[in-house]
Amino acid sequence: MKRIACLALFLASACASPGAPAIPPPPEGNTPSIADVIAASKPEEWRRLDPENTLYMDFPQGRVIIEMAPEFTPNHVANVRALSREGHFVNGAVTRVQDNFVSQWAQAADPPRPPKIGKETLKAEFWIPRSTQVEFTTLPDPDTYAPEVGFSKGFPVASDGTRMWIAHCYGVVGVGRDVSVDSGGGTELYAVIGQSPRNLDRQLSVLGRVVQGMEILSALPRGTGDIGFYKTPEEYQRYADIKVAADVPEAERTNLEVMRTDSASFATMVNGRRWRRDDFYTDPIGRIGLCNVMVPSRPVSG
Amino acid sequence: MKRIACLALFLASACASPGAPAIPPPPEGNTPSIADVIAASKPEEWRRLDPENTLYMDFPQGRVIIEMAPEFTPNHVANVRALSREGHFVNGAVTRVQDNFVSQWAQAADPPRPPKIGKETLKAEFWIPRSTQVEFTTLPDPDTYAPEVGFSKGFPVASDGTRMWIAHCYGVVGVGRDVSVDSGGGTELYAVIGQSPRNLDRQLSVLGRVVQGMEILSALPRGTGDIGFYKTPEEYQRYADIKVAADVPEAERTNLEVMRTDSASFATMVNGRRWRRDDFYTDPIGRIGLCNVMVPSRPVSG
Repeated sequence: MKRIACLALFLASACASPGAPAIPPPPEGNTPSIADVIAASKPEEWRRLDPENTLYMDFPQGRVIIEMAPEFTPNHVANVRALSREGHFVNGAVTRVQDNFVSQWAQAADPPRPPKIGKETLKAEFWIPRSTQVEFTTLPDPDTYAPEVGFSKGFPVASDGTRMWIAHCYGVVGVGRDVSVDSGGGTELYAVIGQSPRNLDRQLSVLGRVVQGMEILSALPRGTGDIGFYKTPEEYQRYADIKVAADVPEAERTNLEVMRTDSASFATMVNGRRWRRDDFYTDPIGRIGLCNVMVPSRPVSG
Repeated sequence: MKRIACLALFLASACASPGAPAIPPPPEGNTPSIADVIAASKPEEWRRLDPENTLYMDFPQGRVIIEMAPEFTPNHVANVRALSREGHFVNGAVTRVQDNFVSQWAQAADPPRPPKIGKETLKAEFWIPRSTQVEFTTLPDPDTYAPEVGFSKGFPVASDGTRMWIAHCYGVVGVGRDVSVDSGGGTELYAVIGQSPRNLDRQLSVLGRVVQGMEILSALPRGTGDIGFYKTPEEYQRYADIKVAADVPEAERTNLEVMRTDSASFATMVNGRRWRRDDFYTDPIGRIGLCNVMVPSRPVSG
């Protein structure tokens, strides 16, 4: 009896994101593909990356592009910009790749050169008040870790009703720290490369997310030292620099636009994935997880 | 008001796995590490892998060890055993690596040699009845995709109250198929290498899970063709064979034991991860996702 009552509750989604709308019904017939939704979207449903908030991390394998989230971690974003501008990230290295967890990078030099203009450490920015007037388009689907989840300008976000924070989904970039909560600053960063480690939520400052190039960070050889650190500097995976896009000559920029997560096309795409039904998917599940939503991006045309 | 009521409901976990116990309270003080829990566990809380249900996939980089799940997909497990024994998997290749999704393997030959004793295709085994008398240790934590989740002999499992199936968590191994639901058989297999693609649940037959060697499958170069297929056979990532452990001379076996997911130590470990608190984790979240639980394994001693 309890099982049936709770199943009904689950299906009615009564406990999903509070205040969020109920889960929309499935579209008629087959669901649209992501390509279909993109093709039908309007130009105003896309947002061009701001070069001041965009980082390029250039590996021999290609470019990793990170969008920073100044609404969530303003001081860390400003500090990483300052660190980049003083050349702190030149000739850096991925020093740790722990399978199903994170790739982490820092200066290759040991000890690292201390920053001159940027700061080594900052006060933690783990969350912002829920009342903050930032975009927050909630998902009605239930989440294991938080009563309210959704998107804010492309970032996956969770809230407990009082606070809100960027959730540790695949591709999210955070600020490494030591034991003290105020010991990070941006000289060491990491990207999530496996199952979303949501227990990191609210324990670390989140700088942004990788918009392009995750396949570079996720396919690096796993470190064989403790918690995935490479045992020797010879194993380090080098990158040339981390540059603010605004500081790169226009001809060398990668201009991307991201589908607005408060747009009708994004909602259509999410609902199509939630109820995915096509020649292959025959038993739609009617739910989608926060970290299972991929936010479309593409080169700016023209 | 609605937000507060639902938040209370969320915290009380009223809608978590039906029939499951409430979320246990946090342990006093710091939570034990996984190493602590393993050190304190009893020998009878471990289960040795059955060589008849264990596959070795030997890459130049090392051995991938897969435990098969005959209680969920008996015909596919028997067929993969038969295919292995007739040499169908000799000189195979990973032919597809799609970032944040799957690594998939098959014969390197195109067209593949048809099986002689094993079958090319079988009737789908996407789920089993919930009433089946298999072990099912439920988690009280809410899940996005199913009203009931937990573990069955180390496999992550979900249920809708009527059916149960292995959930597509990191490391789960499934049976590739074409559009027809009955077009798979085991000649092509895949492993999940990113965020759990739970919308695959109940759409594919799940053969088992990787117990050791995921870092080999997850760090392979991503394919640049459509949906991650390698564009040329030169890019294929080769393995020597897939062998049933029982067919390998004892001296060449990797004998592993897995912590029993119905044991007290496993419950202690899960609750420690759920409420993780130590020098670094200062703001325990009190929840854990099905696919965030790692089932400990270790070499058989003596």
